[in-house]
Amino acid sequence: MQIGMVGLGRMGGNMVRRLMRSGHDCVAYDVSPDNVAALVSEGATGSASLADLVGKLDAPRTVWLMVPAALTSQLAREIAALLSAGDTIVDGGNSYYREAVDLSREFAGLGIDFIDVGTSGGVWGLERGFCLMIGGAEAAVKRLDPIFASLAPGAAGPLDGAVGTAPAGYLHCGPSGAGHFVKMVHNGIEYGVMAAFAEGFNVLDKADAGTETRTTDAETAPLSEPEYYQYDFDIAAVAEVWRHSSVISSWLLDLTAETLLRDPKLDNFAGNVSDSGEGRWTLKAAIETGVPVPVLSSALFQRFSSRGNDEFANKMISAMRYAFGGHHEKPGG
Amino acid sequence: MQIGMVGLGRMGGNMVRRLMRSGHDCVAYDVSPDNVAALVSEGATGSASLADLVGKLDAPRTVWLMVPAALTSQLAREIAALLSAGDTIVDGGNSYYREAVDLSREFAGLGIDFIDVGTSGGVWGLERGFCLMIGGAEAAVKRLDPIFASLAPGAAGPLDGAVGTAPAGYLHCGPSGAGHFVKMVHNGIEYGVMAAFAEGFNVLDKADAGTETRTTDAETAPLSEPEYYQYDFDIAAVAEVWRHSSVISSWLLDLTAETLLRDPKLDNFAGNVSDSGEGRWTLKAAIETGVPVPVLSSALFQRFSSRGNDEFANKMISAMRYAFGGHHEKPGG
Amino acid sequence: MQIGMVGLGRMGGNMVRRLMRSGHDCVAYDVSPDNVAALVSEGATGSASLADLVGKLDAPRTVWLMVPAALTSQLAREIAALLSAGDTIVDGGNSYYREAVDLSREFAGLGIDFIDVGTSGGVWGLERGFCLMIGGAEAAVKRLDPIFASLAPGAAGPLDGAVGTAPAGYLHCGPSGAGHFVKMVHNGIEYGVMAAFAEGFNVLDKADAGTETRTTDAETAPLSEPEYYQYDFDIAAVAEVWRHSSVISSWLLDLTAETLLRDPKLDNFAGNVSDSGEGRWTLKAAIETGVPVPVLSSALFQRFSSRGNDEFANKMISAMRYAFGGHHEKPGG
Amino acid sequence: MQIGMVGLGRMGGNMVRRLMRSGHDCVAYDVSPDNVAALVSEGATGSASLADLVGKLDAPRTVWLMVPAALTSQLAREIAALLSAGDTIVDGGNSYYREAVDLSREFAGLGIDFIDVGTSGGVWGLERGFCLMIGGAEAAVKRLDPIFASLAPGAAGPLDGAVGTAPAGYLHCGPSGAGHFVKMVHNGIEYGVMAAFAEGFNVLDKADAGTETRTTDAETAPLSEPEYYQYDFDIAAVAEVWRHSSVISSWLLDLTAETLLRDPKLDNFAGNVSDSGEGRWTLKAAIETGVPVPVLSSALFQRFSSRGNDEFANKMISAMRYAFGGHHEKPGG
Repeated sequence: MQIGMVGLGRMGGNMVRRLMRSGHDCVAYDVSPDNVAALVSEGATGSASLADLVGKLDAPRTVWLMVPAALTSQLAREIAALLSAGDTIVDGGNSYYREAVDLSREFAGLGIDFIDVGTSGGVWGLERGFCLMIGGAEAAVKRLDPIFASLAPGAAGPLDGAVGTAPAGYLHCGPSGAGHFVKMVHNGIEYGVMAAFAEGFNVLDKADAGTETRTTDAETAPLSEPEYYQYDFDIAAVAEVWRHSSVISSWLLDLTAETLLRDPKLDNFAGNVSDSGEGRWTLKAAIETGVPVPVLSSALFQRFSSRGNDEFANKMISAMRYAFGGHHEKPGG
Repeated sequence: MQIGMVGLGRMGGNMVRRLMRSGHDCVAYDVSPDNVAALVSEGATGSASLADLVGKLDAPRTVWLMVPAALTSQLAREIAALLSAGDTIVDGGNSYYREAVDLSREFAGLGIDFIDVGTSGGVWGLERGFCLMIGGAEAAVKRLDPIFASLAPGAAGPLDGAVGTAPAGYLHCGPSGAGHFVKMVHNGIEYGVMAAFAEGFNVLDKADAGTETRTTDAETAPLSEPEYYQYDFDIAAVAEVWRHSSVISSWLLDLTAETLLRDPKLDNFAGNVSDSGEGRWTLKAAIETGVPVPVLSSALFQRFSSRGNDEFANKMISAMRYAFGGHHEKPGG
Repeated sequence: MQIGMVGLGRMGGNMVRRLMRSGHDCVAYDVSPDNVAALVSEGATGSASLADLVGKLDAPRTVWLMVPAALTSQLAREIAALLSAGDTIVDGGNSYYREAVDLSREFAGLGIDFIDVGTSGGVWGLERGFCLMIGGAEAAVKRLDPIFASLAPGAAGPLDGAVGTAPAGYLHCGPSGAGHFVKMVHNGIEYGVMAAFAEGFNVLDKADAGTETRTTDAETAPLSEPEYYQYDFDIAAVAEVWRHSSVISSWLLDLTAETLLRDPKLDNFAGNVSDSGEGRWTLKAAIETGVPVPVLSSALFQRFSSRGNDEFANKMISAMRYAFGGHHEKPGG
Repeated sequence: MQIGMVGLGRMGGNMVRRLMRSGHDCVAYDVSPDNVAALVSEGATGSASLADLVGKLDAPRTVWLMVPAALTSQLAREIAALLSAGDTIVDGGNSYYREAVDLSREFAGLGIDFIDVGTSGGVWGLERGFCLMIGGAEAAVKRLDPIFASLAPGAAGPLDGAVGTAPAGYLHCGPSGAGHFVKMVHNGIEYGVMAAFAEGFNVLDKADAGTETRTTDAETAPLSEPEYYQYDFDIAAVAEVWRHSSVISSWLLDLTAETLLRDPKLDNFAGNVSDSGEGRWTLKAAIETGVPVPVLSSALFQRFSSRGNDEFANKMISAMRYAFGGHHEKPGG
């Protein structure tokens, strides 16, 4: 099947590669000509502009967008202007699901389908397949089934009684926006799971607290029983042992164990944790529908704090402590 | 190798079975004679009391305890009184790690080793193997290696460069208490991961909020854009698709997908979530060592709330709302 | 000064009363004729419809809205259609600040000012004065100064060096939306403060936990040192003593102490805590601007949980516990 | 009445001064002779050692300890060795309540009463009076009533129907430890209230986020509607206006407003927030008794994070993001 791919970064490039492996015909475009050239050398058809890309596709055309969330709407509109009734635009990025609701309605007037596809699997998708969460009109989703089936990992270890395409790693979740909604929640969960592991490992990392000397002034909480905090754990080994039949065995733990094996102190990282939108949107959905999400929100807020966004609040707490108790801040806490 | 097992519940019984499969010689004891009889019928040697169990073991003896945390210390002391220098007691339950620190010191005077083993894998351990986190003196841990190796899953999918026994699913984590400390943190993480999934699925479950009618009084937050909450997700299918190459693929997700396939509305459960101690202890360790654990604590506190322990606090908030604003509670919220 | 008041509930009615005490001339309207009649008997001019109310006001007219947030926009538009250039609409309700941004722009085309006023003080405002947070165009805010000054408590205990109207209890916070934004954050803080007190009192309430017998099964966390939880506190007396020079002395504590004195067990309340929107909007603002608000979010989510919105999540956690560990739920937790 | 005071820091020194104002006879001791000399110049009797202090008191003696929590037990034991049956030791510091339980039992054998007094009011206690939460044996508490009454603020604004000493600002809360337990919870609440204000003000501080330019890469969450974040609030004025009849008016807000008036950007503070133990102990009590305290815990953990204790966890999250998605950290977040 033929498809045009716009955006050839970490994700888009590998999707083209995986599609070509299954014999699909890919026309590729990126703002960076180097990215296009790299894929042309691997068998893709290159294009120099959106118009060029559209021109190289046969009707009914399918253009798959794989770009940062902030750019999707504008690009989708530019592409729609180049397409015809019966064509399809797919947004495979980490876009806010509401854009899919709005854009699908907007493009319906032009006879163009807009399909939203949440895509998980990261840089490993080429090798392991991409997990696809799909939203939009039934017919268009059906038409693209060969593409989805090739991108997805394919059936492995299905549950007894599971039906449909989910066991193969892709799912038509519902009408427009449903795919990105499910992906949004996936990422919200992802934030929570990552934070759970990170907090736990941090507790292990501080299990030698009893070997340090604490000052005994009124600004410092005493550690009453230092004899119980004398452990110097091999954190990489702990991560490794948990991979084997523990309740928390998971792909994120596999990756963490791998990382700790190479960089046990995580010296390659500073700890300024980005967030790309989906965690925020999950919270907004939870807030609007009245769902308590204390874990998911804690995970997001800790990322905000990791980037220093808690500074003004912390200064204010120190200011209050000084105001009522004359407490002076201690250097470095 | 010969071993005595005390406590033949869900965990202890299966550990005996798994050990017998590897040819170990097991003497079994439980307060319930039926539990003993069941294992005798599968090849274990039965015993009618702790003294009987000890009497059937050859020196140097090993007695493995697999009982509720609240009973461990007392039972360990009873058993120690029956043992001799050179013998070993293993506590494989979900005990507080500090008991291992204290008991190992106490029994050292008797020449008895006390080894703490955190055990993960649940009721699946018989089939998948148990993940073992071990604390205590080097020599005793070494001596029991054949037991640990048989209980553990054995090497599968090791990382390049991983060394020692961790890739086989068991690890000597450090001195006394280290095994239970690592298991405690494992369970703390487990709480967080479970809550992350549960919160995310709850958001999916409420994604049809826009199809309901909200009242427009001053006690009800308005839902400004109901058109964006019109999704009726097949939650079991979502769980299934996420199992396949998504970033959050994990064993807990496998089990959740399996459960949702059979019971999509979770009608078999009421939602009173127990906690058995390890989550609490993880928090206490974090608090004492100054480690922020907002996710792990949120997960634990939500369990407390699920059991109604937030009732007095909630009444007080309603009382304040009435006191300052004349707000009357709405029936059912 | 003359003013029309639309909405004569707990807040609006008392605002009319307080304005009349200062000699202002109030035309009153409410969907309930009884509410109108009550204020007419106290000296207000009654009106039978929005048109009637507007007709009884002299230009330049001021119409103050005091209605549930879900109704504000629609009513404001109906009123604007009855007004003329130079008139002013004031929204004093708990509306989302974005509505003020939008409506002020919309009405600017008609020459009508739209002023947003966040109002705190609850049912006590008549007696203590209302704290007013004001947003909108400078000139219109200036023109209404006599109204604001009469509603507000007036200067009492000003700080050395404080300037402007803030020490008198009202403040022009900025352009359109600024008043409701500041009120929104006020309520966000209010949620957090209420929850802090409620959680603390709940800890006091459970300080006798050591006098109860706990079961010793694997589903129940043991209480290792019951001798430290033997307190049977007089919670009302504790609330009272804290009112006197403690660091947490506050108006909310005053109200709480008063309530506990009359209803020490809070038997008059069930604990289904409503939320009326502002806490949610505070979170959304925090999320969009990247501000960590773990306390404010915890307070909101606990309200959601108090209304049972955590049920599906809790069922899922119980389901997972059963799936991996064979844990059966305990009745009532 | 006569009393010996050990520890003449910010709190102890002012307590001596307040007691002398009511005509009590104070013998003062501190490790710093300068602190002793200062109080001697104001009328206190100085002492050069614990023995000297005890020698200058008439039986039955009362020695009040006002020292950092980490030193209390040891000092109390030294003093007890110098006292006789019928004497009393008072611990007015921020000690863990369990020490009072243990020490009172220990000293009972000597016929010495040990009274625990939680003290709130900070550096303002001299002027406003100290709020006292008292635990211990009835007779000893009764005997010290003149001291408590003088330290406390005295009755002002009592509630209709309030009885006992609570309206005067001191309360016998229960047996040994009860005073420090109540003070512990007071401080737990204090942490939550402070954090609620700090988070809210931080949201106000970032309300101009829409005036900044965000990058549009895949690592940055887009701000979809910058037009709603254009506010440049005068935060000091907002704090001031809230002091006047808003629902969140409180002494902490008074102090915050005062501080912001002098230092609107809080440039005098770095934001490394200390914690002195009581917040931690509140959490431990909540955890052991099964009370959900999501707000109090969030407040404590944010303090831990403010001091950099989240660093290892944050590095791990960045490491995971790199491992699955190839995400590189952005400098400065």
